[in-house]
Amino acid sequence: MATAFLGPRGTFSEEAALHYIERAGGDDQMIAFSSFPALTAAVETGLARDAVLPIENSIEGAVGATLDLLIHETPLRIAGELALPVRHFLVTTPGVEIADVTEVASHPQALGQCRRFLERCLPKAAQVAALSTAAAVEETVTSGDRHRAAIGTARAASLYDGAILAHDIQDVRANLTRFVALAREDHPPTGDDKTSLGFTVKANVPGVLHRILGAFAEAKLQLTKIESRPAKGWLGEYVFLVDLEGHRLDPAVAAAIARIRDDCERLLIFGSYPRFPLETLQGLRDGPNGA
Amino acid sequence: MATAFLGPRGTFSEEAALHYIERAGGDDQMIAFSSFPALTAAVETGLARDAVLPIENSIEGAVGATLDLLIHETPLRIAGELALPVRHFLVTTPGVEIADVTEVASHPQALGQCRRFLERCLPKAAQVAALSTAAAVEETVTSGDRHRAAIGTARAASLYDGAILAHDIQDVRANLTRFVALAREDHPPTGDDKTSLGFTVKANVPGVLHRILGAFAEAKLQLTKIESRPAKGWLGEYVFLVDLEGHRLDPAVAAAIARIRDDCERLLIFGSYPRFPLETLQGLRDGPNGA
Repeated sequence: MATAFLGPRGTFSEEAALHYIERAGGDDQMIAFSSFPALTAAVETGLARDAVLPIENSIEGAVGATLDLLIHETPLRIAGELALPVRHFLVTTPGVEIADVTEVASHPQALGQCRRFLERCLPKAAQVAALSTAAAVEETVTSGDRHRAAIGTARAASLYDGAILAHDIQDVRANLTRFVALAREDHPPTGDDKTSLGFTVKANVPGVLHRILGAFAEAKLQLTKIESRPAKGWLGEYVFLVDLEGHRLDPAVAAAIARIRDDCERLLIFGSYPRFPLETLQGLRDGPNGA
Repeated sequence: MATAFLGPRGTFSEEAALHYIERAGGDDQMIAFSSFPALTAAVETGLARDAVLPIENSIEGAVGATLDLLIHETPLRIAGELALPVRHFLVTTPGVEIADVTEVASHPQALGQCRRFLERCLPKAAQVAALSTAAAVEETVTSGDRHRAAIGTARAASLYDGAILAHDIQDVRANLTRFVALAREDHPPTGDDKTSLGFTVKANVPGVLHRILGAFAEAKLQLTKIESRPAKGWLGEYVFLVDLEGHRLDPAVAAAIARIRDDCERLLIFGSYPRFPLETLQGLRDGPNGA
């Protein structure tokens, strides 16, 4: 079966999908799609078994497109998660030296994330926007233009036979993106799981959110995320999104969910899945460039 | 004195700044700046008295750039708020008819917000991305090209002498953007105010967020917004942003703030300001296109 990811090849999303398949011990095929709704449609219709989507970045925050798909559009469940450090590389046609570079192309977000490196090492280079980091690398390498460089992934450099001039040029070392895998069913309990929920509360009921969080606090369930998205009805109406440690089939989690049901206007259980061991990336946190 | 806004002229941000000045009864000058940090810098350095920035949209959610400025960069306070319905218009060179149009230009977000209109009334027109709705209108009208139309504000149509072919072409009628005015000081109490706060909690203390919300619930303070932004340190560390009804100098609000202080690692009081009467826009909610 296949895993769908947000293309083109050579993006962080492809890297995340590769890691996800490797961790799952599978040898899945991978299919690139060009939009978030295409990814969920691929799984809903059987083109792919699961789809890997970015959901949160430690600097930029929530990925609204993924949250809104879960809240408003797809019946798919979260079956897995993965965190990946964002690493940016300066890529050129082979043989180019830093002194030759007068133009740097990338996705505007990547250019922004490497501002300090660009100011210091390429202060006079013009910055050019591209549709994705992968497209920037592909265009730069295939153009053969010795004055151009691109910011992208190591994977894109290798896919398009580019040369890496500099590595880890991002301003912040502890820049992590969390991805989720969406599938038709969530994951059976493993003993170290997380559960993602969404809910709306009755408007103008003071303290109802406090009461809902109280159900989790009294059950000693650690919340790892709390977030809100517009309910898309009216300003000030929100869908709250909560991640907590434990599986929805654990008795304590099941009891807390049952307790909050009456306080929710709408309750969505996005699924339970093995917790990604974020502590394995803790090394990124140290050093003068850390948090 | 002057009010700063996110240019160019003819954008929603200019419209919001105009409304804000009108509501304040002033006859301020207006100065356009091209980035969010430039807006706060203008007020911090005395170029402008206040700056109007979008903070939240009822469909798209939080404006991360504004929240991150408040959390991480500027000492300015929120001194006012304003909600404005997002209205899109189809603008051409005068004399053009809908049958002539083969190309529609706008900011990609505006094109996305008018998808249904474009599919129904201009199914064959090519969609072209522009840097802003105002730039799209200016380029379309000044080009004199009779095959082009732009999506933008009524204000941009009038500024650049364009003709409005169709009004309110956005998919969702109840599409509201909330703006805040930032200044050196917040606003004195008026009797109908709101207060915006931000805080981080000690990591890994279960239930501390619940306890903090409890302080507001017990004081019967209605929360009108709760949101989280990444603390930019590590995945899973958040700054919580809360809006509540009441002024920070009201005894109940002051007592609740004093009560939560020990539970917060960092507590930011963004300011108190007159509540915008959102109920005056309630008419947008009705009708088949409403929420």
